[in-house]
Amino acid sequence: MKGLSSYTEAIRPLDRDLMARASLKQDSLTKPKGSLGKLEDLSIRLAGIYGTLSPSIARKVVFTMAADHGVTEEGVSAYPSEVTMQMVLNFAGGGAAINVLAKCVGAEVRVVDMGVGADVTWHDCILSRKVAMGTKNMCKGPAMSSEEATQSVLTGAELADQAIDEGANAIAVGDMGIGNTTAASAITAVVTGRSVPSVTGRGTGVDDAALSMKVRAIERAIEVNAPDSADGLDVLSKIGGFEIGGIAGAILGAASRGVPVFIDGFVSSSAALVAAALAPACKDYIIASHLSVEPGHSIVLEHLGLEPLLDLRMRLGEGTGAALAFSIADAACRIMNDMATFEGAGVSRSDK
Amino acid sequence: MKGLSSYTEAIRPLDRDLMARASLKQDSLTKPKGSLGKLEDLSIRLAGIYGTLSPSIARKVVFTMAADHGVTEEGVSAYPSEVTMQMVLNFAGGGAAINVLAKCVGAEVRVVDMGVGADVTWHDCILSRKVAMGTKNMCKGPAMSSEEATQSVLTGAELADQAIDEGANAIAVGDMGIGNTTAASAITAVVTGRSVPSVTGRGTGVDDAALSMKVRAIERAIEVNAPDSADGLDVLSKIGGFEIGGIAGAILGAASRGVPVFIDGFVSSSAALVAAALAPACKDYIIASHLSVEPGHSIVLEHLGLEPLLDLRMRLGEGTGAALAFSIADAACRIMNDMATFEGAGVSRSDK
Repeated sequence: MKGLSSYTEAIRPLDRDLMARASLKQDSLTKPKGSLGKLEDLSIRLAGIYGTLSPSIARKVVFTMAADHGVTEEGVSAYPSEVTMQMVLNFAGGGAAINVLAKCVGAEVRVVDMGVGADVTWHDCILSRKVAMGTKNMCKGPAMSSEEATQSVLTGAELADQAIDEGANAIAVGDMGIGNTTAASAITAVVTGRSVPSVTGRGTGVDDAALSMKVRAIERAIEVNAPDSADGLDVLSKIGGFEIGGIAGAILGAASRGVPVFIDGFVSSSAALVAAALAPACKDYIIASHLSVEPGHSIVLEHLGLEPLLDLRMRLGEGTGAALAFSIADAACRIMNDMATFEGAGVSRSDK
Repeated sequence: MKGLSSYTEAIRPLDRDLMARASLKQDSLTKPKGSLGKLEDLSIRLAGIYGTLSPSIARKVVFTMAADHGVTEEGVSAYPSEVTMQMVLNFAGGGAAINVLAKCVGAEVRVVDMGVGADVTWHDCILSRKVAMGTKNMCKGPAMSSEEATQSVLTGAELADQAIDEGANAIAVGDMGIGNTTAASAITAVVTGRSVPSVTGRGTGVDDAALSMKVRAIERAIEVNAPDSADGLDVLSKIGGFEIGGIAGAILGAASRGVPVFIDGFVSSSAALVAAALAPACKDYIIASHLSVEPGHSIVLEHLGLEPLLDLRMRLGEGTGAALAFSIADAACRIMNDMATFEGAGVSRSDK
């Protein structure tokens, strides 16, 4: 296994000169300047990421990373912990939302056990990368050791690296883990400096009483662990999760290879906070797929300087929003590659 | 040609009982209740439109309707009128944004000359339904006669009807016509009762001076013609356009056959105002694809009681937003049809 620095140090800045030329190319196409809005912006960014005026998303892989969370013993979730394992088997069987949506856009789903609290190694379709049988309860001490934090990030980076070796040129990251919006809210509060209540939502759908318990649990976890907000691995180990570490790693792995990485909702975006703390340059490679209903999500995206493509009132995770965003990104690339120019089509330009 | 009432009177209310069952079906799928947001709402509406718990968008047709506008002599557009004809040829040649985006989603584009101010009949790929060589300048009198208004609506309805006869089960409507946001703003002001400046934007990109001229031209057109806001055909004939009439007709034609119709941006939404004035029941069949940058668009959608799926800062027309929305609607249907249930996948339900 390579070291973390071999990923973080390999991330190059985008090609700004090429992006300026991509912008001119957009303006030469038969439509009023800027009239395709975010599609144009995205195509220009993808041009800068891929280093070509003809960006194309050819092979898409969605990593759905799963793990359990010790903090569930504080009553923070509407679902019991065994649902993580049950849903992992559902992913492997092809019956979950991410399977359906990935199929719509021709993306492959890779299900990764990063730390599910049950043995699922018997299933062929699950990539077994278990760091441990779920995190410890972060209200009582660190969720994981610093070695486990490093291992989870390196595992994710290696998975992205391998997928790219196999031909993937667009990566999406999604999560599954009962209790993981609790970890995501804790990370968000610490890294952005915002109050815990302002970044904590209902997750899979807790009631008011459980929401209060969730806020108190997060405040206790932060107090007990005092994570260093500038140290991504410290934050991850104390109040994170194994799937969050894996996703942070996949972001770094994709960015290190010059491949765009589509983050999904609140949990994968909190992993992006960890990744950006480890290597700020990775932000240029991150596409914010959609805005989740979770109140902390817009705060995370603002902190990262990212604007979401979609806002469909979704809050499922798994990579579902990222799968939908793949189709928007495909469309953005094809606009840049396939539209006629004013000159080519004999269309008059604006006279204003 | 059938009469207008044969379309308007054929529009049935949605099957509310079936929609209630579709909602229960969504709740049985392996995801927290409501966690797919607008995808769930859309799938339930499509179930009600199609009258089945397994809605499916099988064959998609985009009508891109084009016409010229006499009001352009008031200096309301950033582009010269001949661009309408040039763009129609670009559509026919496959080089425009709508061609590229429709191809992404497997939709067929049908380009309709509803009233382009030039002869384009020589091109095989253009459906020639020209009502006249562009409207008259609405600042000086009615844009068209009431017979022309009826003819444009009936033409659109018949086109949708034929497409459905040929197997289409989802229709999208888009526009092309230099000067047509001026007509759309006029219609919006009259039908919604809002002030002209509040519903008038920069269209393809006019500067401040031209925007002022555009506002004054619309105010003059409304004053000169005094359209009856409750009479869709009166509004259309006095301050509308031939492509707007065609789109209104296509909406009525689709609704009369129980087929969803995806409206695009500001211009096709103003046509929906005309359609809804003629037959309020058609609103149930209209899917609002996206929110345009044009300031009048959100006002139109609010008036129609519709929520847009996408917000990508687009303002191109042609049906481009509707083509993108087709992929979201496809995904919504597949979620309802292909996901596993809690029972089937052995996943525990929420304990709250």
